Amino acid sequence: MPAERILEHAAPRLQAAAARRRRLRADRARQLADLLRHQARTTGFPGGVLPLEGRIGADYGVSRNTVRQALDLLRTEGLVERQPGVGTVLVAEKYPHGLDRLQGLAETLREHGEVTNEVRTAGPVSAPAPVARRLGLPEHADVLCVERLRRLGGLPLSLDLTYIPMDIGAGLLTCDLEHNDVFRLIERLSGQPLGTADITLEAVNADAHSAAVLEAPRGAAVLMLERLTHLRDGRPVDLEFIRFRGDRITMSGLLRRCP
Amino acid sequence: MPAERILEHAAPRLQAAAARRRRLRADRARQLADLLRHQARTTGFPGGVLPLEGRIGADYGVSRNTVRQALDLLRTEGLVERQPGVGTVLVAEKYPHGLDRLQGLAETLREHGEVTNEVRTAGPVSAPAPVARRLGLPEHADVLCVERLRRLGGLPLSLDLTYIPMDIGAGLLTCDLEHNDVFRLIERLSGQPLGTADITLEAVNADAHSAAVLEAPRGAAVLMLERLTHLRDGRPVDLEFIRFRGDRITMSGLLRRCP
Repeated sequence: MPAERILEHAAPRLQAAAARRRRLRADRARQLADLLRHQARTTGFPGGVLPLEGRIGADYGVSRNTVRQALDLLRTEGLVERQPGVGTVLVAEKYPHGLDRLQGLAETLREHGEVTNEVRTAGPVSAPAPVARRLGLPEHADVLCVERLRRLGGLPLSLDLTYIPMDIGAGLLTCDLEHNDVFRLIERLSGQPLGTADITLEAVNADAHSAAVLEAPRGAAVLMLERLTHLRDGRPVDLEFIRFRGDRITMSGLLRRCP
Repeated sequence: MPAERILEHAAPRLQAAAARRRRLRADRARQLADLLRHQARTTGFPGGVLPLEGRIGADYGVSRNTVRQALDLLRTEGLVERQPGVGTVLVAEKYPHGLDRLQGLAETLREHGEVTNEVRTAGPVSAPAPVARRLGLPEHADVLCVERLRRLGGLPLSLDLTYIPMDIGAGLLTCDLEHNDVFRLIERLSGQPLGTADITLEAVNADAHSAAVLEAPRGAAVLMLERLTHLRDGRPVDLEFIRFRGDRITMSGLLRRCP
């Protein structure tokens, strides 16, 4: 068989092998990116600078191309940047939010900086049926509706929409909502501590409007927390829909096999 | 002042007022979308069909334009679709994953359908330093690395990467990983139940490769779960990086103010 015929026959197999190598490299790059992301969040890197590509490759037993592809993934996520003369540096800090304990944002992030709240809306609205039902109120009863853009270190962290029964909500309207967690204020106004909260977490893409408010790219991944909080006596007092910027928060907790 | 001068003077104010109305409508649409999303996930809608736009508007006290905009948001998320002659119908079901108890995917979703696993990789690798450290192994010790694409009802639900020490991992290689949760298999092989797991949740945008594997659009929001699971005696035995399709899963749990 002439050489060109042999090559022609071999071409599909060579192409398939090349596609397989690309797939394997993409898998490995993703796996490496996961490990680097984890390290960034836990022990960190000395001086916030990642090791050289060759060093990472040796540490993780992968090729330099795989390292480059992994760093590209982290760059796309906005976690690292290349700085000429310095290397690959961490640029985004993700803040840990506990899943083990019911806390307000300022309480949970106290050691990471000051949480400030820009109050976008605060006033009574007629409770839509699902809100009234969850808060144990008659349909169309008035509830306080508060929307806040919450910042940590000046940068938007979350957009929180909160519904609160008016007997507590009316008092809230006279409080400093810019510098206080609603949780603390509810405890002060109701004269009893909070008890438990039912939470649901989802990952959603930010719609154009939420993205603009959060100063994030359109379609950015958002960690959405829905939370119904009760007083210690069991009464539901706070229904929230919170959109956290995905690039700024992680939620951590401990699960038990047999609770 | 002639009429055209009056209009000229009024124009900036009218424009500002129009912008404010648009912003308010966008806020209300998002707030309504949050309530409808919640209802879709909990009580649902009779026959999976949402009420007519006029009915929703009356129920929630908002204009029909706001209802349309809210339904647009849910459509963009892939939660609802417009079907001619039927109305707006729910098309995506989000499955609840518990945050209260450590369970495998098949265990936790048992009532929702069968979980099947496509094993993409299964074999020993030299443990990178952060993996070795978390599993309490010497650096570069062999660990079993398993990557599975997990499906519920045939559709991709998550892409799971798992690292397991070889003394348990070697046994796993002889098991049916397609139809069993790794948790159950580890308990069988180790002869003891699992104890606790440290988990971290994040929302990230899917990179092109993960999106292709999960059959989701590029950039789709992904709920990323990192989980380090221990045997009851405290030994860490399973380090996982799990990417859930954001449009198919919710995580729910109960938080306590004073645990």
